[in-house]
Amino acid sequence: MGAEAGAPWGWTDAHRALRVAVVGATGAVGRELLELLSAARHPRERIDCQARGRSRVALADGRAFEVRPADEAPGRCDLAFLCTPSEVSLDLAPLLVESGARVIDLSSAHRMHPGIPLVVPEINGKELDRGPRLVANPNCTTAIAALPLSVIDRAAGLEEVVVVSYQAASGAGLPGLRALEAEMREAAGVPADERESPFPAPLALNVIPAVSELDESGVSGEERKIEGELRKILGRAGLAVEATTARVPVQRCHSVAVHARLSRELAPADAASLLRAAPGIAVSEDPHGPRPRECAGTDPVHVGRIRSGARGGRSLCFFAVGDQLRKGAALNALQVAARLPARRP
Amino acid sequence: MGAEAGAPWGWTDAHRALRVAVVGATGAVGRELLELLSAARHPRERIDCQARGRSRVALADGRAFEVRPADEAPGRCDLAFLCTPSEVSLDLAPLLVESGARVIDLSSAHRMHPGIPLVVPEINGKELDRGPRLVANPNCTTAIAALPLSVIDRAAGLEEVVVVSYQAASGAGLPGLRALEAEMREAAGVPADERESPFPAPLALNVIPAVSELDESGVSGEERKIEGELRKILGRAGLAVEATTARVPVQRCHSVAVHARLSRELAPADAASLLRAAPGIAVSEDPHGPRPRECAGTDPVHVGRIRSGARGGRSLCFFAVGDQLRKGAALNALQVAARLPARRP
Repeated sequence: MGAEAGAPWGWTDAHRALRVAVVGATGAVGRELLELLSAARHPRERIDCQARGRSRVALADGRAFEVRPADEAPGRCDLAFLCTPSEVSLDLAPLLVESGARVIDLSSAHRMHPGIPLVVPEINGKELDRGPRLVANPNCTTAIAALPLSVIDRAAGLEEVVVVSYQAASGAGLPGLRALEAEMREAAGVPADERESPFPAPLALNVIPAVSELDESGVSGEERKIEGELRKILGRAGLAVEATTARVPVQRCHSVAVHARLSRELAPADAASLLRAAPGIAVSEDPHGPRPRECAGTDPVHVGRIRSGARGGRSLCFFAVGDQLRKGAALNALQVAARLPARRP
Repeated sequence: MGAEAGAPWGWTDAHRALRVAVVGATGAVGRELLELLSAARHPRERIDCQARGRSRVALADGRAFEVRPADEAPGRCDLAFLCTPSEVSLDLAPLLVESGARVIDLSSAHRMHPGIPLVVPEINGKELDRGPRLVANPNCTTAIAALPLSVIDRAAGLEEVVVVSYQAASGAGLPGLRALEAEMREAAGVPADERESPFPAPLALNVIPAVSELDESGVSGEERKIEGELRKILGRAGLAVEATTARVPVQRCHSVAVHARLSRELAPADAASLLRAAPGIAVSEDPHGPRPRECAGTDPVHVGRIRSGARGGRSLCFFAVGDQLRKGAALNALQVAARLPARRP
């Protein structure tokens, strides 16, 4: 899939002079980032791809990027994107910062650290003005929900938010996508070769109502991330947030049904106008949309079904869909990098 | 699929002496009702199948039931199940009642009529004690959400309820199921013969965030049904209910994520105990369950992911899955009939 829509996302010649490392380049998010860097015309010779695992090639933008083993020294770079598991990011981020690079960590390792900014540029991009060396990129579902919620919060003050998700297979990376595709073939009577799955149950023709493990309170890790990260990104430490996360048989794009309680009245038509005017958001006029299948590979968070809830104007409901590999991960990280000073710290 | 689990649902020899009409016998709900009547050992010669459309045979319980055209005189029966569109039920129900039959209408035609009971037997079965001639059977998603919510309401008083659904293709009947199955084959590279679909967009690998048409407020008909019917079934006219309904690529079983606000504190463990003890409910101990694929063809409403929300003990969240052709339709209707006097009114 090409990645031209919206390119180059503020990526200037100054950014193109940076030596960029993509660590975890062979995963779903790493590959998406390579697509976006290519679309932003970043010189290929200034992209250093690294990954663990056996694969030494990352296919993106119709080309093969050579991939170095990630357990070698990270190498000298100006800007590093960590598309790595949290434990790897925890090790690697300090080393890279010490070496003089700026680091954008797409894992959850640093997100809730009080001293480290967690940024969706359209919402709290000003946190980047002081040129932080390490920036955390939010959870995919959080980023998608946060963008429209920030608009509603500024207009009418959020009091309480319920977020219920419909998350795509590729939220669990390429193994998740492959497992779903194999199960789909099997359901259609085509023998499937693949048997491994990152999911605890078949996902084809199913809904799995827990995207990650549960804590002792019965809340999933994914639900805790949405609660904590939404508060931090919106700058609303006391905001009441409640989430249910579920995996659905969709290849790409997470969807969220949002039911919000507001401090002040906000008519749905006014909410729609504000959302239409907000950067990074597309308002869907389709009465049966937005839908993940149609939104895959696009940049914005698509918002539809905007309506009042049980408290009239003091409640607002909407349905939002975003490509979790784009705005939910790689695109947001690139937008963060584009707003940072385009030079070594 | 056999229908033996839980049979015969209070169906006694007195019920088996009744002449039963199933109108709309060739649809998904009508066929399910024939399965259940067979499992409850209702004599086949006392089942009068009727339907519009071309098909003159309903396959159920591995047998072929002969189907009379529904535009003939309804015929003399003691008990009629109307698995018909609302406009047909509106015409037919008064004629049947006048002819001396009891009528259970599975359409939405009579549900919100103040004089007509809308019944989930485990919740408000006492409404059947006075032997009403016409009983309305609730919307499928409503019935599934109502059963656990009634237990929570009795224990801790519901103040506000958010219901977000993941609804199966067969909620749109056999055409919905066939459309999904054809799309699944197509997605797996198998040429699909079928092109017709009751859905406004492809459902395979998708989520369609509106199960029916929207009103001028942007609320779907399905969402309005959940709001109004939940209030009526729970006997809580002023209860604040808010719903988002969405169709997902699942063959059978609707799922709901429920976020409730309570008048009094209720610990999740206590809620689980109460739900475990309640008739018609199965509490799932699977941390990644319950799931629709595994619950298909079962009688109970399966409840899991029971936990507190943003208001601590004064908020309760859970995930419920029910077979919308069983408890959401045919099974509930049969249970209603089983509690009515087993004689002509």
